[in-house]
Amino acid sequence: MTLRHNGGRRSRKAGLPPGTLVYTGEVRTSAPRMTVFDYAGGWCDERNVKSVEELLKSKRKGAVRWIDVDGLQQTSILEAIGNEYGIHKLVLEDILQTGQRPKLEDYNDYLFVVLKMLRYNAVRRAVDAEQVALVIGPKYVLSFQEGLEGDVFEPIRQRLRSHKGHLRNLGADYLAYSLLDAIVDQYFLILEELGDRVEDVEEELLNEPTRSTLDKIYRLKREMLTVRKSIWPLREVASQLQRGESTMVKRSTRVYLRDLYDHTIAVLDTLENEREVVAGMLDIYLSSVSNRLNEVMKVLTIIATIFIPLTFIVGVYGMNFDPDLGPLSMPELRWAWGYPAVMVFMAAIGLTMLYYFRKKKWF
Amino acid sequence: MTLRHNGGRRSRKAGLPPGTLVYTGEVRTSAPRMTVFDYAGGWCDERNVKSVEELLKSKRKGAVRWIDVDGLQQTSILEAIGNEYGIHKLVLEDILQTGQRPKLEDYNDYLFVVLKMLRYNAVRRAVDAEQVALVIGPKYVLSFQEGLEGDVFEPIRQRLRSHKGHLRNLGADYLAYSLLDAIVDQYFLILEELGDRVEDVEEELLNEPTRSTLDKIYRLKREMLTVRKSIWPLREVASQLQRGESTMVKRSTRVYLRDLYDHTIAVLDTLENEREVVAGMLDIYLSSVSNRLNEVMKVLTIIATIFIPLTFIVGVYGMNFDPDLGPLSMPELRWAWGYPAVMVFMAAIGLTMLYYFRKKKWF
Amino acid sequence: MTLRHNGGRRSRKAGLPPGTLVYTGEVRTSAPRMTVFDYAGGWCDERNVKSVEELLKSKRKGAVRWIDVDGLQQTSILEAIGNEYGIHKLVLEDILQTGQRPKLEDYNDYLFVVLKMLRYNAVRRAVDAEQVALVIGPKYVLSFQEGLEGDVFEPIRQRLRSHKGHLRNLGADYLAYSLLDAIVDQYFLILEELGDRVEDVEEELLNEPTRSTLDKIYRLKREMLTVRKSIWPLREVASQLQRGESTMVKRSTRVYLRDLYDHTIAVLDTLENEREVVAGMLDIYLSSVSNRLNEVMKVLTIIATIFIPLTFIVGVYGMNFDPDLGPLSMPELRWAWGYPAVMVFMAAIGLTMLYYFRKKKWF
Amino acid sequence: MTLRHNGGRRSRKAGLPPGTLVYTGEVRTSAPRMTVFDYAGGWCDERNVKSVEELLKSKRKGAVRWIDVDGLQQTSILEAIGNEYGIHKLVLEDILQTGQRPKLEDYNDYLFVVLKMLRYNAVRRAVDAEQVALVIGPKYVLSFQEGLEGDVFEPIRQRLRSHKGHLRNLGADYLAYSLLDAIVDQYFLILEELGDRVEDVEEELLNEPTRSTLDKIYRLKREMLTVRKSIWPLREVASQLQRGESTMVKRSTRVYLRDLYDHTIAVLDTLENEREVVAGMLDIYLSSVSNRLNEVMKVLTIIATIFIPLTFIVGVYGMNFDPDLGPLSMPELRWAWGYPAVMVFMAAIGLTMLYYFRKKKWF
Amino acid sequence: MTLRHNGGRRSRKAGLPPGTLVYTGEVRTSAPRMTVFDYAGGWCDERNVKSVEELLKSKRKGAVRWIDVDGLQQTSILEAIGNEYGIHKLVLEDILQTGQRPKLEDYNDYLFVVLKMLRYNAVRRAVDAEQVALVIGPKYVLSFQEGLEGDVFEPIRQRLRSHKGHLRNLGADYLAYSLLDAIVDQYFLILEELGDRVEDVEEELLNEPTRSTLDKIYRLKREMLTVRKSIWPLREVASQLQRGESTMVKRSTRVYLRDLYDHTIAVLDTLENEREVVAGMLDIYLSSVSNRLNEVMKVLTIIATIFIPLTFIVGVYGMNFDPDLGPLSMPELRWAWGYPAVMVFMAAIGLTMLYYFRKKKWF
Repeated sequence: MTLRHNGGRRSRKAGLPPGTLVYTGEVRTSAPRMTVFDYAGGWCDERNVKSVEELLKSKRKGAVRWIDVDGLQQTSILEAIGNEYGIHKLVLEDILQTGQRPKLEDYNDYLFVVLKMLRYNAVRRAVDAEQVALVIGPKYVLSFQEGLEGDVFEPIRQRLRSHKGHLRNLGADYLAYSLLDAIVDQYFLILEELGDRVEDVEEELLNEPTRSTLDKIYRLKREMLTVRKSIWPLREVASQLQRGESTMVKRSTRVYLRDLYDHTIAVLDTLENEREVVAGMLDIYLSSVSNRLNEVMKVLTIIATIFIPLTFIVGVYGMNFDPDLGPLSMPELRWAWGYPAVMVFMAAIGLTMLYYFRKKKWF
Repeated sequence: MTLRHNGGRRSRKAGLPPGTLVYTGEVRTSAPRMTVFDYAGGWCDERNVKSVEELLKSKRKGAVRWIDVDGLQQTSILEAIGNEYGIHKLVLEDILQTGQRPKLEDYNDYLFVVLKMLRYNAVRRAVDAEQVALVIGPKYVLSFQEGLEGDVFEPIRQRLRSHKGHLRNLGADYLAYSLLDAIVDQYFLILEELGDRVEDVEEELLNEPTRSTLDKIYRLKREMLTVRKSIWPLREVASQLQRGESTMVKRSTRVYLRDLYDHTIAVLDTLENEREVVAGMLDIYLSSVSNRLNEVMKVLTIIATIFIPLTFIVGVYGMNFDPDLGPLSMPELRWAWGYPAVMVFMAAIGLTMLYYFRKKKWF
Repeated sequence: MTLRHNGGRRSRKAGLPPGTLVYTGEVRTSAPRMTVFDYAGGWCDERNVKSVEELLKSKRKGAVRWIDVDGLQQTSILEAIGNEYGIHKLVLEDILQTGQRPKLEDYNDYLFVVLKMLRYNAVRRAVDAEQVALVIGPKYVLSFQEGLEGDVFEPIRQRLRSHKGHLRNLGADYLAYSLLDAIVDQYFLILEELGDRVEDVEEELLNEPTRSTLDKIYRLKREMLTVRKSIWPLREVASQLQRGESTMVKRSTRVYLRDLYDHTIAVLDTLENEREVVAGMLDIYLSSVSNRLNEVMKVLTIIATIFIPLTFIVGVYGMNFDPDLGPLSMPELRWAWGYPAVMVFMAAIGLTMLYYFRKKKWF
Repeated sequence: MTLRHNGGRRSRKAGLPPGTLVYTGEVRTSAPRMTVFDYAGGWCDERNVKSVEELLKSKRKGAVRWIDVDGLQQTSILEAIGNEYGIHKLVLEDILQTGQRPKLEDYNDYLFVVLKMLRYNAVRRAVDAEQVALVIGPKYVLSFQEGLEGDVFEPIRQRLRSHKGHLRNLGADYLAYSLLDAIVDQYFLILEELGDRVEDVEEELLNEPTRSTLDKIYRLKREMLTVRKSIWPLREVASQLQRGESTMVKRSTRVYLRDLYDHTIAVLDTLENEREVVAGMLDIYLSSVSNRLNEVMKVLTIIATIFIPLTFIVGVYGMNFDPDLGPLSMPELRWAWGYPAVMVFMAAIGLTMLYYFRKKKWF
Repeated sequence: MTLRHNGGRRSRKAGLPPGTLVYTGEVRTSAPRMTVFDYAGGWCDERNVKSVEELLKSKRKGAVRWIDVDGLQQTSILEAIGNEYGIHKLVLEDILQTGQRPKLEDYNDYLFVVLKMLRYNAVRRAVDAEQVALVIGPKYVLSFQEGLEGDVFEPIRQRLRSHKGHLRNLGADYLAYSLLDAIVDQYFLILEELGDRVEDVEEELLNEPTRSTLDKIYRLKREMLTVRKSIWPLREVASQLQRGESTMVKRSTRVYLRDLYDHTIAVLDTLENEREVVAGMLDIYLSSVSNRLNEVMKVLTIIATIFIPLTFIVGVYGMNFDPDLGPLSMPELRWAWGYPAVMVFMAAIGLTMLYYFRKKKWF
């Protein structure tokens, strides 16, 4: 398991003029996947295309178009789309810059939203963050993904195909909301996943903390920091959207955006809560370790303080002084009851000490 | 005792279109309890009903109606009530989503309030949080509970029945206030409960901290986090209510809502205070453990440093060198006063060390 | 010394309708003390009364009346006063609820202020918080105290009696300011008291920290938390008063209220400062304990590492191998210089070790 | 070195009516120093006076007057000045109250500013805070100092005398700015002083931390807290001044006040930075102590674990069993190679253990 | 490696009147480098000049002029430029004061921006902060650097020379934006550098923490504090610029300044994140050290508790009591099976203890 950052390296484009299109994410070899959905109330036309020309073919009047590009390494595609829809070059640059902070920018003719799609990566055993950029116009939504395997938009595609939930009847702004909602809903799953791991570590911590518990706590903390970095700025984005200052957003959609905002706040609340829990764990761990050290030292101290004096006493009677030299020269060695007396004396010392330690509640 | 979260799992409805009614809380088998109160100044009509039809039977003109549904697993009930009162489907969705964050939403025709009813669960020995959703209209209040045994509304029912406190004379907004007030009042009890436990742990901590004290501190901390998560967002809800921007809230009720707001702030203040107290406990615990380790080590060190040199000395006189070999070969063994002299010498060493440790205040 | 909360228990009135008058503080047996001051420019009439009727006797026109009730257990008194002055029942309820958070409420006809009077209790060796509620009308001030022995208003009474400081010439708002000022001035004394204790503990901490230092730090921290809880909300109260939005407060009094606000901020500043000092102490304590543990261990290690090898050596020469068996079988025992050589060898080992420890700066 | 607070004790005036003039600072025996500067474009008249009458002698028309009073124990002086310039009695009270929090108050006819002049006291080896109060009128500036030896205004006096920097041509507001600027500039020196000490302690900490390092860290922390208490509220004062809402401040002076504000922010920034550095030091110290404890314990453990088993072995061969009793009764004692074999065996044990500890990187 | 501050020492100019030009940075011997760029749409004229006269030679009408001065020790240059462009003397003073906090000041005729150019110094192995001051007028940009080797503006010079990126067609405000953008882009590189070091330390921490890890953590923490101090105030600067209140900034440039603001926020976000990671490391380090201490103590305790009792037993049989004295006087010494019995007994004790420790999971 590695802790290396995911997110684009800026160093790849330092020094270039603003607006230069350079992809800074990880280079993935597979070609970008491009999908177009044209729909209006009664119908929906879905196409998987290979070339930009196909992608930008004209659509029926009044229809809403959703272009989804998954994979950004071919900057020419982005350039073509940008030309077609009159997207500012700073926007295009931001789409390619995969280490973006979630944000919302209002360019009057369209809204530009950047956010992170989080998914649990079972191989790395960590959370993957994939950047998603949305350009929301009056009759179109453009979505750009970094190109990781799969996304969370499948249910929305299903709804478009099956005419479920009236999605087709509502405009581009509602489609954009649906996409955002799908991403935010995914956050809850990520948090539940994290929450489960928190509880596992918690159980371990309270029952039998080991050195590996420490590592787990650290990694959990680190990962939450990463997740928070991805989600935190979204609060502001959602708040801006909900206030509905843009003309792109219809009044009827605002109530849904308020709901989106609520969800975002709830996600952050939960995350902060979990973070506090994890932060508290370290103190508990440290206390536990100190506690066990204490236990260990008590065992040592009990054994040593009982036997060290006794060993001294037996040492005394092991000295080679000659009892024949005089009445003060180890006369005990000559007494018939000398040995048992010494043994009893030592037992008394040992028991006294045990009693003392018992009274001090050392064991 | 388990630390598992209570609160609904979002994963049960990931991918569904917004507004889909799916109950995400724990499934409880017992049927929902439904109660209707119709009242106006002079009279009050209470009914426990079994079916939705009965529930929605027309009421006398001018009367205020309070519908209380306790248990949400039958989504059809909710749907029927929603249709009758023209509730937005996002509201219905939120009612069913039991992991909601407390919030207030103004839908012009009605106010929607979600909050948490906290109760101390003697079995789990922890605080239970039950979601309560209120829909407050001009002449009606709908309350939806998750369905845990009992609630805190019984005194209000009593007041309605007995015409105590003029509750019947006042409108739906005052009833809603009363319900909210009952819930917030309950928070004080929860906090007193927690406060008592804090003080017990405190006593334990200052007198005789053990490993189980650490666990208690941790669990207390965790529980307070949970309680806080339930109460914290209420501050904003109460503040919005008190500002009285909604047309649902009469001017005369506002002074009560200000009181409610004050109570909420007071609850949070107390909670934050308790949380700080608990946070400080961990440091004290750690210091205590270190202190005791110190005590243990002092005992060991005193005993060892006194006896180890003495044991060395007796070891010297236990060496098998032959005093007959020459004048430098352990001549002491041949002296009549050798043994007592050694004993006195050792006693002197021991006493000197004791004196040294005493001076260093080690005992 | 007990750490039990002072402040009313809400549980005594859970479930009652809002506005029900129940005293939640500690029940004190002595009857309430009631004092009335009627005054205007030239004169001042002071009465200690026993009954409510006496209390509410009509006053001279134009005079300012200050009613001070010390002891709240007889709710009938409060009710009578409330009727006379037209006080909202929520206000009366709040006066009786002794666990109130300091606050200011503007009821148009009067201002309602709740705050805490702090006094150092020499017996409990802790700070007592007594709730004081003020109702400030155009020509009257009502003050309600919980009923602890004594208060901080004596200097104000003196000034009223002696016509010192022009207090009599100014209105009810200035009297109210004077009462608030007396309470806040008391806070400075409490903080100086706390500050002195902080410095005592500090001295102890830096010179000779013991286990009891830890307890003192903890209790200090706890007490500061209590004091802070009493004072903190006052900031907002004073700020509101100073802004002078109420018609009860004359323009000329505002400059005094600004001064009151400054004092409150200064009190809080000092308190936060002291709290930070105390917070830092725990770390120092922990470091000190670790330090001393280190010292203890060094003593043990020096003694043990010097004598353990030496004891081994003397043990070797205490083995009962027979030097007569062969040339490799402990021939030293047969040498005339064997014993002194061993002694010198051991001395060399010991001194080497001492030198090593000295170089490592262990002693 | 003492940690006793400097700053006035409020207890000296508790219970007196607001506006009573009592000096609460430390009483200094020397008489107050009073200086008057009258100046306008071309000329400057400087007088050191002994009496108030002299002080208040009428000045030339159009001239700016700066009265500097250094020493506040004679309240009569203050009273006389207050009468002359029509200063509110609360202002006079605040001037005498030396424990004031820095603040700015606009009394329409004049501005009142309180702040702290910090100086490093080489004797106490700590920072001294002297209160300075400024009253800024249309054509005069009154400055009141607590009366410590020296001040930071000398360069300004020089500039007035020598007509350097156009100070004489500008009004009273620019003089006031110059005084404030001199005080704030002094803060930078104090911070550099503190910064140097921080770096000394840092060096000590990273190389050879001792118990005295801990004390130094604590005292540094404490002193920074004191400095911060003196400077922090100044931020607000400077911000208010810079916004230039007072009619006392000319438009052209505002750009200088903005500069003053920037300096204040920079001072606070640096202070907070240093505080964070110092805060981090304690953790490092604690870690260092733990580290060294670890080292000590490793030495003990290595020595003890090697020699304790060996001592046991030599003890075995020191037992007085008679090898003649039978073939199992310590036959080694009878072997010619017994002794060397035991010695080799013990050496093998010792070396194995050393190898084990080496592998564990214990030394 | 030294931790000494870089940044100017204020003490060098304490007491001088405001607006006095004194250079407070480190004195560098090399002469200042001065470059002038005059450009408009089609052309660009670049000159490296030696004297101020040359620098200020008149330019073609309509052209934008960028004067870059690298090295500030000759204050006369600054004075001349200041006169030419009518720069306020406080601005000139700030340019020379190298310890400035990043800030933006609007002087109506021009904007004044101070910020820090960060570069990784491979020799000191730390981050260098060089102050850059920009004066942005309607048709000119003045940039003043402290004079460290090299800067981050080279790509911009290239773009001016090569007419790449339309930089020449846009005004002075866009040039200023480009300069700021270059500086902020550099921050990302610094953060990546720091991030890499964080991860190296992290790896070390989780695998094999040593005393030097502690130092590295501390230095990392310290450096981040320095970087943060340089970057943090920039947030406000960028925010002010983006709001575009100045007439110096054209509407079309604002979208770029918003981008700059976003970048600044992203930089700070990342920095705060890294800081939290580093903060968490210390706890882990402390826990690790405690853990290892625990391990060490366990080894000692196991060895000591096993062998100390055994050594006592062998000591007993080494006592010189005479078995001939009576039946209770160490009769074992006379038994043929005495010795083996004792050995078996001791082995039993040892194994029992091993079993006990195993059960306690000590090894």
